[in-house]
Amino acid sequence: MSEVKDITSRDVDFAKWYTDVVKKAGLVEYSSVKGSMIICPYGYAIWENMQKILDAKFKETGHENVQMPMFIPESLLNVEKEHVEGFAPEVAWVTYGGSEKLEERLCVRPTSEVLFCDYYKKIIKSYRDLPKLYNQWCTIVRWEKTTRPFLRSREILWQEGHTMHATEEEAIKETLRMLHVYEDFQRNGLAIPVLVGKKTEKEKFAGAVASYSLEAMMYDGVALQNGTSHYFGQGFAKAFGIQFLDQDNKLKTPYQTSWGVTTRMIGALIMVHGDDRGLVLPPNIAPVKAILIPIGNDEEVQDAVDTLSRSLDEVGIPYKVDLSNKTPGFKFADAEVKGYPVRIEIGKRDLANEEVTVVRRDTLEKMKMPVGDVVSSLNSLFSNIQQNLYDRALKRRDSMIYEANNWDEFKEIATTKPGFIKANWCGDEACEAKIKDEFSMKSRCLIEDEEIHTDCVVCGKKAKYRLYFGRQY
Amino acid sequence: MSEVKDITSRDVDFAKWYTDVVKKAGLVEYSSVKGSMIICPYGYAIWENMQKILDAKFKETGHENVQMPMFIPESLLNVEKEHVEGFAPEVAWVTYGGSEKLEERLCVRPTSEVLFCDYYKKIIKSYRDLPKLYNQWCTIVRWEKTTRPFLRSREILWQEGHTMHATEEEAIKETLRMLHVYEDFQRNGLAIPVLVGKKTEKEKFAGAVASYSLEAMMYDGVALQNGTSHYFGQGFAKAFGIQFLDQDNKLKTPYQTSWGVTTRMIGALIMVHGDDRGLVLPPNIAPVKAILIPIGNDEEVQDAVDTLSRSLDEVGIPYKVDLSNKTPGFKFADAEVKGYPVRIEIGKRDLANEEVTVVRRDTLEKMKMPVGDVVSSLNSLFSNIQQNLYDRALKRRDSMIYEANNWDEFKEIATTKPGFIKANWCGDEACEAKIKDEFSMKSRCLIEDEEIHTDCVVCGKKAKYRLYFGRQY
Repeated sequence: MSEVKDITSRDVDFAKWYTDVVKKAGLVEYSSVKGSMIICPYGYAIWENMQKILDAKFKETGHENVQMPMFIPESLLNVEKEHVEGFAPEVAWVTYGGSEKLEERLCVRPTSEVLFCDYYKKIIKSYRDLPKLYNQWCTIVRWEKTTRPFLRSREILWQEGHTMHATEEEAIKETLRMLHVYEDFQRNGLAIPVLVGKKTEKEKFAGAVASYSLEAMMYDGVALQNGTSHYFGQGFAKAFGIQFLDQDNKLKTPYQTSWGVTTRMIGALIMVHGDDRGLVLPPNIAPVKAILIPIGNDEEVQDAVDTLSRSLDEVGIPYKVDLSNKTPGFKFADAEVKGYPVRIEIGKRDLANEEVTVVRRDTLEKMKMPVGDVVSSLNSLFSNIQQNLYDRALKRRDSMIYEANNWDEFKEIATTKPGFIKANWCGDEACEAKIKDEFSMKSRCLIEDEEIHTDCVVCGKKAKYRLYFGRQY
Repeated sequence: MSEVKDITSRDVDFAKWYTDVVKKAGLVEYSSVKGSMIICPYGYAIWENMQKILDAKFKETGHENVQMPMFIPESLLNVEKEHVEGFAPEVAWVTYGGSEKLEERLCVRPTSEVLFCDYYKKIIKSYRDLPKLYNQWCTIVRWEKTTRPFLRSREILWQEGHTMHATEEEAIKETLRMLHVYEDFQRNGLAIPVLVGKKTEKEKFAGAVASYSLEAMMYDGVALQNGTSHYFGQGFAKAFGIQFLDQDNKLKTPYQTSWGVTTRMIGALIMVHGDDRGLVLPPNIAPVKAILIPIGNDEEVQDAVDTLSRSLDEVGIPYKVDLSNKTPGFKFADAEVKGYPVRIEIGKRDLANEEVTVVRRDTLEKMKMPVGDVVSSLNSLFSNIQQNLYDRALKRRDSMIYEANNWDEFKEIATTKPGFIKANWCGDEACEAKIKDEFSMKSRCLIEDEEIHTDCVVCGKKAKYRLYFGRQY
């Protein structure tokens, strides 16, 4: 059980617990390259599952994958003013090619808006060329000072959708459509409940007209922005001079969107579902859904493992057999650290009753099960685990969302309770900034579906909006 | 037909023909970033198909995907002497993070040996940790002076396998196993015949004990190195101090391999199979295997297109319908430029006889086919096209391999005939260099399965080896 002993309790030191889990579960290894991590096979397999599900969804909704250059010449980054101001301070600059100093320095892409615009300018001429629905899977670089695996890293694996449309209406529809693709994936794939809404002007993406985000709450009540979808309007298109000849024979400027999710979602998986024994993976995203643990070397045990393995192969459930020469106790603990949704213990004693022991990772509940029924029971067990993880996360999150009607209430909650605060706001950035300065809480997103019935929680003036506030990763 | 008119004939100007095809087929667009290209949806879809087939094969053979950092600190690159000498002249250097000058400059990885070794040093302790069979899909950067789409580019999309083994025997077996995985893929996936063999000392990878390559011959007789597999011995492992405790309780140094293929294979596809009408894609790698072209707008045509589409969906054949408002002639030409293996023309006149017209891209042969038989006939038609492309390429290649028994013969062939030359060689690097200097022909690989019966083609001394020589991309 030594692996488990080494995990700090999440209620004692959540940050330490997190880094213990990413390391012990074999998701990440630190590298000699400062600020960069190595994604180990198990961590990368989770990312591959995310990619597979999302990529299929992107293609289903008509998007095509492309690959842009990795470098952006400084002059190209400078074309859109707000955008360059937002990103220039945190990019890595290439200044030499071999032994030659470059005439113009290049940054390693922190995001690819300007590269896509450079491309769109070449290929969009007529309304017949629209819409352009593109996506890119790649690595981006942001020169962060302090880094944490998956959450804040100098290199980020992500996808970025970039689309161009003939009308504003169509572009806004696309922005919201992809936001909901993400929401659906987070709910049904990751079993993570997310608050979905528009960002304030202050918090929106550099260069966007409107940014929408998916805000997840971690176990410690801190927010993780787990995906964004932006409506750009015509800002970039105008800056790059992208125009098309419309059906009415007039030259028009197209409307743009962009949307992205990153390996940060792996961080969210850990911090929403994990516990003191390690990772807990929702079956719909787990690279290994069941771990088979033979207890002892008896022939009947090996036969039962072989039979079960064949049945799992047949139905296509991804599984692993722990054939190491460790003790059963160690193997159980290792299976728990890795967060495999289901563990199947196959021992001589159980087999004498034609049974095996099945253990759910989410509840740690142990069940004796007739050996012949195991494989056919698994899919409904996986659904059950998936649903339970979602429900549990939802219940916990909702229990940590508070309402504040005035400054004193806000202060009381912000200083004593982890979680999010719902509050009314006048719309003045100074009020939003005051909450950030006093409590390190940023606005998460606007709440559109609730009535505004009190005054601004900061200044007391008439409120125009309701907002979620929360500290963030 | 305007698209086709714009393609230079490959016999007039092969280089121009190549760039015309990559552009007109929609594989690549030039970007404002010098030396980097944009891979367009159709080009990227070909790469995705390559990835899908190879990734499944890598996993089948026990390899796991990981992700290493993108940057290599200069001191880490310097650990293995031969390696740094080979790569340092052609890397891109990051010297600034935001506005701060870095204490140590970082290169953008030109390949990841040293990163993998840095990782292996951390995770390999015991014989139980071996073998490590890892692969990485990523982008690498090499600061090339002159670039050509897919062939020579500053950014290259590739995969690099990196494995560690307890014994030399096992590592050599792995090197050859992956070489044959590539050979099989090139033959059955890409329909490209390759010469497979060991590189000379002069031409091997910087840091390898032995390099094996897959040498394809393009239409113009020029070689393209279309994949490599390297046996590293213990060179890197010793430089990095990687050791494991073996079963006999002794500390030992493991044995290493690496192997990779790149988007360059798309260049090979173009230059092996393409013709004056454009791209010709082997069905096994084509993202779109059949293009449906409705002729006219009549209801019966539309109905037939719908029925065919449904049948293709059912059997899972990837297809497209050309619904543009272009003329049939233009659509045919466009289908040819794009190299779709099969074109199905659906017109009123044919339908009156319950027929459609099926056109093979490889031979341009036209066949009338009963509309009810088309879908069920396609798979055998695809096999036939795949085989024909391979056979045709093999025949052409073999007709352009010559034998030279002495310097005069070598000179005669090298100066008058495009293609490869087989010749005997004493093993002296000066002789190899002389051929390079005089004819710009490098040794491609050793020929292991033929008897050596004459003297060195350069110096006339006793020959030890037989080699292929050829000019290269």
